[in-house]
Amino acid sequence: LCSKRWGRDRDMELAELIAAGDRRAIARGISLVESQAPAARELLAVLFPRAGRAHIVGITGAPGVGKSTLVNALAQEYRRRGARVGIIAVDPSSPFSGGAILGDRIRMRDLAGDPGVFVRSMASRGCLGGLARATADAIPVVEAAGFETILVETVGAGQAEVEIAQAAHTVVVVLSPGMGDDIQAINAGLLEIADILVVNKSDQDGADQAAAVLEAMLNLAPPRVGPSGDAWKPPVLKVIATQSVGIAPLAQALEEHAAHLERSGQGRQNEQARAARELHQALREALWERFLAQARNALEATVQRVRDRQIDPYTAAEQLLRDAER
Amino acid sequence: LCSKRWGRDRDMELAELIAAGDRRAIARGISLVESQAPAARELLAVLFPRAGRAHIVGITGAPGVGKSTLVNALAQEYRRRGARVGIIAVDPSSPFSGGAILGDRIRMRDLAGDPGVFVRSMASRGCLGGLARATADAIPVVEAAGFETILVETVGAGQAEVEIAQAAHTVVVVLSPGMGDDIQAINAGLLEIADILVVNKSDQDGADQAAAVLEAMLNLAPPRVGPSGDAWKPPVLKVIATQSVGIAPLAQALEEHAAHLERSGQGRQNEQARAARELHQALREALWERFLAQARNALEATVQRVRDRQIDPYTAAEQLLRDAER
Repeated sequence: LCSKRWGRDRDMELAELIAAGDRRAIARGISLVESQAPAARELLAVLFPRAGRAHIVGITGAPGVGKSTLVNALAQEYRRRGARVGIIAVDPSSPFSGGAILGDRIRMRDLAGDPGVFVRSMASRGCLGGLARATADAIPVVEAAGFETILVETVGAGQAEVEIAQAAHTVVVVLSPGMGDDIQAINAGLLEIADILVVNKSDQDGADQAAAVLEAMLNLAPPRVGPSGDAWKPPVLKVIATQSVGIAPLAQALEEHAAHLERSGQGRQNEQARAARELHQALREALWERFLAQARNALEATVQRVRDRQIDPYTAAEQLLRDAER
Repeated sequence: LCSKRWGRDRDMELAELIAAGDRRAIARGISLVESQAPAARELLAVLFPRAGRAHIVGITGAPGVGKSTLVNALAQEYRRRGARVGIIAVDPSSPFSGGAILGDRIRMRDLAGDPGVFVRSMASRGCLGGLARATADAIPVVEAAGFETILVETVGAGQAEVEIAQAAHTVVVVLSPGMGDDIQAINAGLLEIADILVVNKSDQDGADQAAAVLEAMLNLAPPRVGPSGDAWKPPVLKVIATQSVGIAPLAQALEEHAAHLERSGQGRQNEQARAARELHQALREALWERFLAQARNALEATVQRVRDRQIDPYTAAEQLLRDAER
C-alpha cells in the first residue's frame, strides 16, 4: 500500500488536498514520505516551499513520565489559544509501537472530532535512521496543511531523540519525580538539547527536589547566547498534566522560546544547520545510489575479498572508486 | 599526539612491533586508528590480512550490572585455559568515560603485570558513529598482536551497543536481579542480539525469577538456525562475577557458540555481512570526501537555498550531482 506509485498529476492533486487541510490527504502524504518511495520526493518538492512557518516542538523523556498526557493537555491549551495543532508521536524503542498506540487512545478521548488537531503515530520498523528521516519528512506535510504548532513526541533513549530533536525548534524534556534519586541520571546529552525542562506529576513526593536538582545542573551549564547576544536559560516548570496544572505557563514558555529564537538570530542559525544536515544526508544517499547503479557487480566481488582478508575495507574502497572513475 | 604522521616505513615497523606483541606498539597502533588519520589506514592495510583469527566477544548490559567485574573474571578464566586475552572497554554514554576508567582500575588490580592480557579503554568524545568505527578498527590491531580472545565491553544503551555488537562474533548480554521487575524492560533489540544471557549477582533476591523470565522470552523467539541447519538457543547463565561463580560454564558456552558458528556456516555468513558493512561504510565516506573536494562551494550556496525553502533537499541534491558530473 505504502509503495504505491503516484503520477506527477496525482502528487499535485494530493499536495492541493493537503494544503486545503484534507485529513485523509495528510495521512496519505505521510504514508507516502514514510515509504520513501520516489513519488515521496516529488510530493516533498511541491510541499517543501509551503512549509517552514510552524513552530516545531519536540517533547521527549523516559517511558512513564507522562509525555502523552502532557502532549494532550498542551494541544488543548493551544486549541484554546486558537492555534491548529499537529501531533507526531514517534516510538523509536519498539517495532510494535505499543506506547504510541496507547498514547493515541488517551488523545483520542479528548481530541477526537476536533478538525484543528491532527494526530499521527510513527513506529520504527527496526530502522532508526529511517525513522528520524521519515519524521523530518512528515513535518513539512503537516506544516503545508496549515498547522501552526507541531508537537513531536518521542521516547528519550539514546541517539534517536537527539536526531529527532534536531528537527524541532524547541525541545521540551519531561521528567517525573517518580524517577526518585535517579533524576541525576538525566544524561548530559539530554540536558544539552533541552530548551525547557518539565517536572511532570509534580504533586508527587520529590518534585521540588527534582526541580532543584535540575536548576542546579542548569546553573553549572554555560549560558546559551544567540548570535545577536540574546541569552536563553532553560526554565524548569512544574506540571500536573493529568489535571492540566501548569500547562498555560508551559505554552507561555514555548512562545517565549520561539521569540528568543527570532530575536537572537539563533533560529536562523538553526535553520541553516538543519538545511545543511538535510542536504548532506540527501547527497550522501544519492551518491551511494549512483555508485551502486554503476558498480554493483564489482562491489560484490570486492566484499568477498574483504571477507577473505585479502584486502582491508579502506584500500578496497579507494580501488573501487578509482576503477569507477575510469 | 594522536594525529602525528607516520611514514610508510614507520607503519611497517609499527606493524612488526604489533605482530611481535609489543604492548607500547599495540597502544600506539590503537591511538593511531582512533585518530582516523590517513596513516591509520596504511597501518590497517598492513594489519588487516593478519587479523581475523581471534574470537571476538561483545559484552553488554545496563550500567551497574557488573560488566567490568564479569569481564575481569572471564579474562582470568581464559588465562587459566592458556589463551591470551585482549580487552577493549567502550563507553559510548560519557565523553569523560568515568565508567571505563573505573573498570580499568578493577581490572588492573587483578590483571596488571600479566603479559597475556592487554586492556584498552575507548571513550566516545561525543561522536557515536566514530566510536563504533574506531572500535571496529582497533580489533584488528589487537588481533594482529596474537590475542586469541578479545572481549569488547560496552554499556547497553540504544544504538551504540548494536553497532559495536556487529563487530563481535558472540554477544553476551548481562543483567542483574537488582533491576527487579524491570527485567521485562529488556528491549527486544537487546534480546535479539544476545547469543548468551548472563544473570549476574545471582546470589541476590530475584535472580531465579529473572532467569525464568528470560527463558520464557527466549522460548517465544523464533529459533536461530544457521545455513547448514545447526540451531542455537541462547543459554541463560547464572553468575556471581565477584566470586568467579559460574564463569567456567560461561567460557564453555562461549566456546560452544564459536563451534556453532563454524559448524552451521553462520560464522561465514556473519563475516560476509561484516565485510559488506565495513566496505559500504568506507565507500560512503570516500564518496562524500571526493564530492566535497570537488563541489564544496556549490554545496554551501545550495544550503542557503534549502534554508530559504527555495528548493527541497532531495531535488537540490540531484541538481548538485548533475552539475558535478558535467
